[in-house]
Amino acid sequence: MRHLLSTKGMSRDEAILLLDIAEDMADVANREVKKLPTLRGKTVVNLFFEDSTRTRISFEAAAKRLSADVINFSAKGSSVSKGESLKDTAQTLAAMGADGVVIRHPASGAPHVLAESGWIDAGIINAGDGTHEHPTQALLDAFTIRRRLHRGAARGKGLDGVTVTIVGDVLHSRVARSNLWLLTTLGAHVTFIAPPTLLPMDMSGWPAEAGFDLDAAIDAGPDVVMMLRIQQERMNAAFFPNSREYSRRWGLDDERFGRLAPTTIVMHPGPMNRGLEISSAAADSAGSTVREQVANGVSVRMAALYLLLSGDREDS
Amino acid sequence: MRHLLSTKGMSRDEAILLLDIAEDMADVANREVKKLPTLRGKTVVNLFFEDSTRTRISFEAAAKRLSADVINFSAKGSSVSKGESLKDTAQTLAAMGADGVVIRHPASGAPHVLAESGWIDAGIINAGDGTHEHPTQALLDAFTIRRRLHRGAARGKGLDGVTVTIVGDVLHSRVARSNLWLLTTLGAHVTFIAPPTLLPMDMSGWPAEAGFDLDAAIDAGPDVVMMLRIQQERMNAAFFPNSREYSRRWGLDDERFGRLAPTTIVMHPGPMNRGLEISSAAADSAGSTVREQVANGVSVRMAALYLLLSGDREDS
Amino acid sequence: MRHLLSTKGMSRDEAILLLDIAEDMADVANREVKKLPTLRGKTVVNLFFEDSTRTRISFEAAAKRLSADVINFSAKGSSVSKGESLKDTAQTLAAMGADGVVIRHPASGAPHVLAESGWIDAGIINAGDGTHEHPTQALLDAFTIRRRLHRGAARGKGLDGVTVTIVGDVLHSRVARSNLWLLTTLGAHVTFIAPPTLLPMDMSGWPAEAGFDLDAAIDAGPDVVMMLRIQQERMNAAFFPNSREYSRRWGLDDERFGRLAPTTIVMHPGPMNRGLEISSAAADSAGSTVREQVANGVSVRMAALYLLLSGDREDS
Repeated sequence: MRHLLSTKGMSRDEAILLLDIAEDMADVANREVKKLPTLRGKTVVNLFFEDSTRTRISFEAAAKRLSADVINFSAKGSSVSKGESLKDTAQTLAAMGADGVVIRHPASGAPHVLAESGWIDAGIINAGDGTHEHPTQALLDAFTIRRRLHRGAARGKGLDGVTVTIVGDVLHSRVARSNLWLLTTLGAHVTFIAPPTLLPMDMSGWPAEAGFDLDAAIDAGPDVVMMLRIQQERMNAAFFPNSREYSRRWGLDDERFGRLAPTTIVMHPGPMNRGLEISSAAADSAGSTVREQVANGVSVRMAALYLLLSGDREDS
Repeated sequence: MRHLLSTKGMSRDEAILLLDIAEDMADVANREVKKLPTLRGKTVVNLFFEDSTRTRISFEAAAKRLSADVINFSAKGSSVSKGESLKDTAQTLAAMGADGVVIRHPASGAPHVLAESGWIDAGIINAGDGTHEHPTQALLDAFTIRRRLHRGAARGKGLDGVTVTIVGDVLHSRVARSNLWLLTTLGAHVTFIAPPTLLPMDMSGWPAEAGFDLDAAIDAGPDVVMMLRIQQERMNAAFFPNSREYSRRWGLDDERFGRLAPTTIVMHPGPMNRGLEISSAAADSAGSTVREQVANGVSVRMAALYLLLSGDREDS
Repeated sequence: MRHLLSTKGMSRDEAILLLDIAEDMADVANREVKKLPTLRGKTVVNLFFEDSTRTRISFEAAAKRLSADVINFSAKGSSVSKGESLKDTAQTLAAMGADGVVIRHPASGAPHVLAESGWIDAGIINAGDGTHEHPTQALLDAFTIRRRLHRGAARGKGLDGVTVTIVGDVLHSRVARSNLWLLTTLGAHVTFIAPPTLLPMDMSGWPAEAGFDLDAAIDAGPDVVMMLRIQQERMNAAFFPNSREYSRRWGLDDERFGRLAPTTIVMHPGPMNRGLEISSAAADSAGSTVREQVANGVSVRMAALYLLLSGDREDS
């Protein structure tokens, strides 16, 4: 694997390979010394044009556990904010010897531009670009589901026949998009539930069902319910009346949570707005994988860094 | 030792053990390669909800000298500032595999909440919580006094009979509180000198004497005079008329400094307001330990990290 | 070498020694594991009183490639911004065991103060001070020119007889000053071209020619044309009418670039204002060394850190 830009177009074999390597990486966390020498001498740059401490430190922990050197580059206050082009930033990082660049950018497609431009030879990992994709989030979600369903015997497996209901601001969510492509590639069936104003107008080409009725979706008995984070900023944007109304209709409150089967997996990418899109009872339940998702995030990012930066990476 | 949250309740044996290990750590600074492999593969997160570059880099230097990986997490601009709960932050760090969390927080008691919640299994070090405690500051102060008094033969010893006068904004000072508990546990006698509005109303239960008259306190001939930093913000809060008046009555100016015995130790936690609470002559005198305190801070923090994070830590 | 504060006063032998070591360091980038153990156990502090992500990460990459521990200390939001003196900051870093301090400061001369004060024993590297000097930039520029001219056989050589035209805001440019001293020491001839308001009034003592006419300078056929970055802030300061007028008279546009000999080296310290002081065609041409300059910056900074911090540094 040369770059990790999106889950759309990722083959089933590629996805399963990455998830299987992540299983190996998860084992490292149980060692006496939680560190592999694999990427010693490699430099990973966290190039963040948007603040995201959680994602940044997850990549930082993953890279350091592989013995890479990590350089954090926040675009705020840098020459980037003074108008330096992405091209010049990329060429600068290339010249400094960056082997991997983890990029978060408000513009959809920025990581692809970086990867396809020839400006930089480093492996590029998309850590979230606009409303487009956030592939490592989807990979850690898939990893988490697979582990829950096949605990101890997950390697090599997909998610065939698994039903996943994703609830919330699908329109703006790169997490929803990345999950859609990856989960369906792995054999799962995805349903989106959202307020009408927060579903894309045109979903042709999206291999998902969509609806507005969370109660019906819950009663359908999905294997997985994934709640998306509500961006409070959108509340002012007339997408829906107010947060109480949102919570009443599209929140996983105690009542709805109580109607789920005990085996249903409850997911959230974090950080959660407890009491808004998810109740504390649901978030902290035995079915909740919120914490596992964070832990698995490090393993999946180690796997991605390994595939992109270790000696035997493919050059295509 | 499982956590380092406060010096109140710390036993004399625990304190002396930590100070003795800090003596060993101080020796590392004199080595050709100033680094121990002790915490290789461990991850220390500096979780700072308040800016404090000095304290943060002291812990960072300590952790790196023990070969730990360090991740800096400034709450500003993070999801924490968007309202994420301490619980979710803690669980996130736990899931990412943090072995130690150094926390600075504006709310008194936040580190205890973290330690006692069960949200995270990591060793917690309080790097300053509200007006409550700042235990590593007190430990480095005690270490500094002990070294000055018993140079070369400090191991195993306490501070029995040592008289310490602490001067300044005692009311708001976590440094004053942590020192009070630790120094008295080690056998010292503590006197607080402060403007009436900057002494706690109720000091019952505090094993210290208190007064308003710095001149009388100086003439009493204490072994140690510790000047606290004045927070300029408090000047507007009508706690005292203005900084000149403060300096005149409660500052260690040249005249007062001249009346101290040559053997008196002059301390300040830094950063100093030279000319306000302490004169430059006093700050830079042979009796001043300001720089030793900083150096000892790294040794004491290495000792704390060692006790909390190395393999043979106790689980209670 | 004890400190690296300026190129003024640096001897030819010192400069060539550093450039030769940088050649060795450049070879490290081609290794399987791009890392030397040279500075293991040493701590390098990046002490930045001005934002400069590019320079900071170049030094960070250089230090990490030599296995040093790096601590980033941004003065913003620290006690420094609350009025702590440079003296106290320096003594704090000294006490924490900093072996090297890379300092960027808005005040010309601040690094010298640090080096000559006795406050700190660490090796000091000036990473840009006011309008004074930026020696590692000049060294990387000289390294870049030398490599282009003597590719593969640069060691031991100077820049005798090389003609260098430096264009732009010479008045405020520390890059121009550092290059002037270093390039002339190495035997080159320097010409400054600038708007009248952006040339120093008194250039006596500067071993450079000066003029206002870029076209004449180009037609003179220099070996090197170095374009300085225009600080957009200066545009409002009535130094010249507007950016279009600036670009028309002092920019390396496509027409002027076309008149340069194919062997002319085109340099820029970055970040570039494409279309203002330099056209994209010039910036991306075969004669452009913009990317090489960045890469060479890491090698030159490795050499400086090596000379200052490795065991066999001179104590003078």
